[in-house]
Amino acid sequence: MAARVQRLSRSMLKTLRDDPADAETLSHKLLVRAGYVRRTAAGVWTWLPLGKQVLENVTRVVREEMDAIGAQEVLLPALLPKEPYEASGRYEEYGDLLFRLRDRKGAEYLLGPTHEEIFTQVVKDQCTSYKDLPVMLYQIQTKYRDEARPRSGILRGREFQMKDSYSFDISDEALAESYRLHREAYTRIFERLGLDYRIVSAVSGAMGGSASEEFLAPAEAGEDTFADCPACDFAANTEAVTTTVAPVDGAGHPAVEELDTPDTPTIETLADFLDVPASATLKNLLVKVDGEITAVGVPGDREVDLGKLAEHLAPAEVELVTAEDFTGRPDLVRGYVGPQGLDVPYLADPRVAEGTSWITGANKPGKHARNVVCGRDFTVDRYLDVVVVEPGDPCPACGAGLRLDRAIEIGHIFQLGRKYADTFALDVLGPQGKPVRVTMGSYGIGVSRAVAALAEQTADEQGLCWPREIAPADVHVVAAGKAVQIELALEVADKLAAAGVRVLVDDRQGVSPGVKFTDAELVGVPQILIVGRGAPKGLVELKDRRSGEREELTVDEALKRLADDA
Amino acid sequence: MAARVQRLSRSMLKTLRDDPADAETLSHKLLVRAGYVRRTAAGVWTWLPLGKQVLENVTRVVREEMDAIGAQEVLLPALLPKEPYEASGRYEEYGDLLFRLRDRKGAEYLLGPTHEEIFTQVVKDQCTSYKDLPVMLYQIQTKYRDEARPRSGILRGREFQMKDSYSFDISDEALAESYRLHREAYTRIFERLGLDYRIVSAVSGAMGGSASEEFLAPAEAGEDTFADCPACDFAANTEAVTTTVAPVDGAGHPAVEELDTPDTPTIETLADFLDVPASATLKNLLVKVDGEITAVGVPGDREVDLGKLAEHLAPAEVELVTAEDFTGRPDLVRGYVGPQGLDVPYLADPRVAEGTSWITGANKPGKHARNVVCGRDFTVDRYLDVVVVEPGDPCPACGAGLRLDRAIEIGHIFQLGRKYADTFALDVLGPQGKPVRVTMGSYGIGVSRAVAALAEQTADEQGLCWPREIAPADVHVVAAGKAVQIELALEVADKLAAAGVRVLVDDRQGVSPGVKFTDAELVGVPQILIVGRGAPKGLVELKDRRSGEREELTVDEALKRLADDA
Repeated sequence: MAARVQRLSRSMLKTLRDDPADAETLSHKLLVRAGYVRRTAAGVWTWLPLGKQVLENVTRVVREEMDAIGAQEVLLPALLPKEPYEASGRYEEYGDLLFRLRDRKGAEYLLGPTHEEIFTQVVKDQCTSYKDLPVMLYQIQTKYRDEARPRSGILRGREFQMKDSYSFDISDEALAESYRLHREAYTRIFERLGLDYRIVSAVSGAMGGSASEEFLAPAEAGEDTFADCPACDFAANTEAVTTTVAPVDGAGHPAVEELDTPDTPTIETLADFLDVPASATLKNLLVKVDGEITAVGVPGDREVDLGKLAEHLAPAEVELVTAEDFTGRPDLVRGYVGPQGLDVPYLADPRVAEGTSWITGANKPGKHARNVVCGRDFTVDRYLDVVVVEPGDPCPACGAGLRLDRAIEIGHIFQLGRKYADTFALDVLGPQGKPVRVTMGSYGIGVSRAVAALAEQTADEQGLCWPREIAPADVHVVAAGKAVQIELALEVADKLAAAGVRVLVDDRQGVSPGVKFTDAELVGVPQILIVGRGAPKGLVELKDRRSGEREELTVDEALKRLADDA
Repeated sequence: MAARVQRLSRSMLKTLRDDPADAETLSHKLLVRAGYVRRTAAGVWTWLPLGKQVLENVTRVVREEMDAIGAQEVLLPALLPKEPYEASGRYEEYGDLLFRLRDRKGAEYLLGPTHEEIFTQVVKDQCTSYKDLPVMLYQIQTKYRDEARPRSGILRGREFQMKDSYSFDISDEALAESYRLHREAYTRIFERLGLDYRIVSAVSGAMGGSASEEFLAPAEAGEDTFADCPACDFAANTEAVTTTVAPVDGAGHPAVEELDTPDTPTIETLADFLDVPASATLKNLLVKVDGEITAVGVPGDREVDLGKLAEHLAPAEVELVTAEDFTGRPDLVRGYVGPQGLDVPYLADPRVAEGTSWITGANKPGKHARNVVCGRDFTVDRYLDVVVVEPGDPCPACGAGLRLDRAIEIGHIFQLGRKYADTFALDVLGPQGKPVRVTMGSYGIGVSRAVAALAEQTADEQGLCWPREIAPADVHVVAAGKAVQIELALEVADKLAAAGVRVLVDDRQGVSPGVKFTDAELVGVPQILIVGRGAPKGLVELKDRRSGEREELTVDEALKRLADDA
C-alpha cells in the first residue's frame, strides 16, 4: 500500500537550537526543540504535526492490542456530572486535583480524571444477565487532572491522553482472567512501542501481589522510584517492599541500664554523645491515630515514610503530635521516649524484632537506656513496613540487596473488586437466577506520557531517535544541495512511498545541508537518506540515525534496502 | 487485508423496542434504541461500541480528505487560557455559551468552542516568513458549547466532535485558493459519507457571496432553514436571501387621506376594519439603535427578523422600545405610527420601494392614512433585508418563487480575513523584506453531528440504514436457529473476514430469530446474511437492508458476492 510523503518545504516545522528555558527533562527539551509539541498553558500542550503523528502511532498500537483481547472501544464524555463522583466519594477525595465547573444553569460538573463511576453506570444500563459478561470496555480519551505542579512537558500534564479500560466479571476467577488478558496486552503494547519497562507490584504482598501492578519505564526523569533485585526477578513500587526479620535469641543480653544523656533529644545527638552508630538506637515517633497517641518504633538510622504509615492504618486518620498533645502527659517525655513501660499502643518496623537489643529513651528528661530488649522489656503491638526503603535493603524474595531506580509510570493494572459495583448496586442475574454483584478491574496507559517516556529512553545527544513503528516516518530524505538534489530527493521519496515506505523529505530551498543534517538528527526518524554530491551520478548515502553508520549506495540499492524493511 | 469479526454474543449491545421518552428526532430515537449512544448528562453523550465505530469511520474519511489537500493534522488542547479569547473579544461575546472554570490557583480557563485564537498564536510562533506559507492546519477534537437548550441527541450537544481547520495566507488570492481547496475537500467528504447536502451562501451578496458558505444536509430534524430555488441553482441560508424591488412610478396616486380607524392598533385589526389585505398596509416597528429610536417599515403581511436586523446594524446594539420610551414623545403614537413627517431615522424593507403606496398610521390616536406614497410623502433613510423569508419569495438570482427547507448544518467554510491576525499581530516577512499581515480562513465540520445527519437521512421505519463506508460492518450475519446455524454463521463470518469483509455476527444463543431480525434491521448494517433453515444444506439468504430484497444463495455464492464488494 502506498505511503505518504511529507515535504518539509510544505510543512509547518520550526526547530530550535536552544533548550526552552523552563524545560527540566530531556523529553521536554527535545520534543519542544524538534517541533513536536508547544506549550499552551501550564501543563496544557499543543501537539504539532510531527507530535500528533507520533501520538497517533502510539494510539494505533494500543488500540490494536486492546481489540485483540476482545475489549470494545467506546468514547465517554470528559465533561461529567458530579453526582456519580459524589456517590463514590471521589468528588471530595480528589480535592484540588479535580477541575470543577458549573453550566449556565448552575449545575455542577467536573472534567473526568478517570471514569470508573461512569463506566459502572454504562454497564449497569447495558448488562442485565451473567450471559452479558465478561465485558471489557476501553477508550482513548483526553483526561484532566489539576496537578499542583505540572511539569516535565507532556510527562505530567493537566490535560493528557489516556487509554483507560474496565473489566466487568461475575467472579474473582473471571476478574483474574480479565486482569491476565490486560497484563498480556500491556506487555505486547510496550514491547511494540520499543519501551524498556518493568512490571512491578504496586501493593504489598499481604493484599495479594497480583491485585495491582505498575508498568514502569526506567528513566532519570521519572517521578516514581522502584526497588529492583539484581539477583532475582523481584521488582516493586517501594511502597510494596516488605521486610521479614526473624526473631533472635535475646536471652544473653544484660539488664537494662539507665544512662545520663543530657541534651540528646535527637538520634544524631544521642549517637554522637554515646559514640555508637545510629542503627544501634531505637527511634520512637509519636503520632495520633484517629486522635489516640501511638508510638512507632524504627531503627535510629531509618526514616518513617508517613505516607506508607497512613496507608497501612487507613481508613484511620494519622496526624503528627503537637506540643499540646504532651499537656497532662508527664509519661511522654519529648526526645526521650522509650517503649519500655510506655502506656500507648506501640507499632514497629519488622527490624525491631523479638530478641533485638536497643539504646532508647528512658522516658525521663536527659536519660536514655541501653540493653532494652524487645520481648523482654517491651512488646510490639503490631509490626508494619513503614520505613523509607533504601538501596541495599534486603529483597523480600531472595534477600539480596535491592537497587532503587527512577522510572516513569506508563501503565497500571488493578483488580478493583466491588467498590464501584457496591456504590451503584451493579448486579446481574446470575446462573442460579439470583442477582450477583459484579467485580471490576481498572487498567490505564498514559498514551501521551508513553510518548515522553519513549523520547526519554531513546533520545541521544543529537536529538530524538524513535523506534520505527512510532516514528513520524520510516526515512528522512535530505536534499543536501541545489535543484538537482531536490529533484532527485523528491523522485526517490515518491518511489519509496509507492513501495509503502513513509517518507519525510527535506526539500527546503535556501537551507544549508548542515542545518538539514542537524534537523534530521533532532527530528529522529530512524533512517536518514542523504541526496548530496553524488546525486548526479545516482549515488546517495544511507545513515542509521542511532548508530550513525553511513553507507554509500546507488539510488536503486537504497530503494531496495528501505523498501525491503517496509 | 483481513477484517474483523464482531460477535454479538461477546459484545455489549442492548437494543430497545421503545423510543426514549425525551427523544424528539428520528436520529436521537434510533441511535439510542440501536445501542449507538447513551446520554450521560444534558447534551453530553457516551458513544457505545457501535456508535464509536461509526464515529471513527466518519473521522477517517474526514482525515483522509484533509490530508489529501495538504492540511496538516495537529491536536490542540480543549482546556484553554482565557487571555487569547479576551484579546479577541470573544470571552465576552460568547456569553453563557462558554464553559468557564478556574484552576486550583484561581487562573481562569475556558473549554474551547472553536480555536481561531490559539491557532493564530501557534502560527505566529511557528511561521516567520512568507516562505512558510500557505499553511493549512486541522484537528479532529472535542469541542464545548453550553447550549441554552441542548437537544436532539447528538445533533446539538454541549460536548461534541468537530473537525476544525484554519488556513494562513499572505494574500486574498492565496486565501481564495485555500478556501477552494477546502470547498472541494468538503464536497468529497460529504459525497463519500453518502450525505445528501447543499452548499448555500451564508452571508448576503453584498459582503461577497463566496466568503462564507454552509454545507447543509436537508432533514426534518434540522434547526436551520434555507432557501432553495426550484428554477436555478440558487440556495442560501435565509439570512443571505436578498430582495431587489425596482422603483415604480408613483405619480398617479391620489393625495394622502386621513381615515378614522378607532381601536385598530395592530395590522390585523386595521386590515379587518378597512377590509383590505394586510399587504396593502405598512407596518412600522419602533426599535432603539444604540439608544436612538428608529422606525423600521415593512409590508403589513411580513414579519421583521430581529436577528437579521441586529446583524445588519452591528456593532450598533438593537433593542425593542418599551412603554417608557414614549414618555415625552407625543409625536410617537403607539399603534398609529406612520413614516410621513416622522422625526426618527426610517429604515425599510426593499419592498417599500420608491413610488409604492400604503395605508399606514397617521401619527394620531385612532387615525390611519391611505395613499401614503414612498418618495412623495416620506423617504427611506436606508433599505435593509430584514423580513423573515417566506416560501414563494422571489429568488435573488432568477426571480422564481423560492422554496424553504429544513436542514442540519454539517459544514461551514469561511474566509475570515485579518480579524485574528490583527488581534495577535500575525505578520510574516514578505517577499520584499517587509512584514505582511496574514489572512486567514476557518473551516468546520461537525463530525458527531454528521453521524446524526446521516442517521436522519438514511434511516427508515425499521431502523438505521448506513451507507457501507460508514456502517459498523459490511454485513450482519444472523444465525437464525440452534447450534448448527451458529456454527455455520461463525464459519461464514471467519471466511468473510479473511476476504476483507467487516462482519457483525449475531451468534447469541437463546435469542429468537425474530428478535435477531428486528435487531439487524435496527442496527442498520447494509447487507444481512441469514443462516437459517437451509444451513444444513449449505443455503443462506442475503438480504439488502435498504430495499428488503432477499435472495437464496449457496454459502460459496454469498461469500463470493460479499467479498467482491469488499
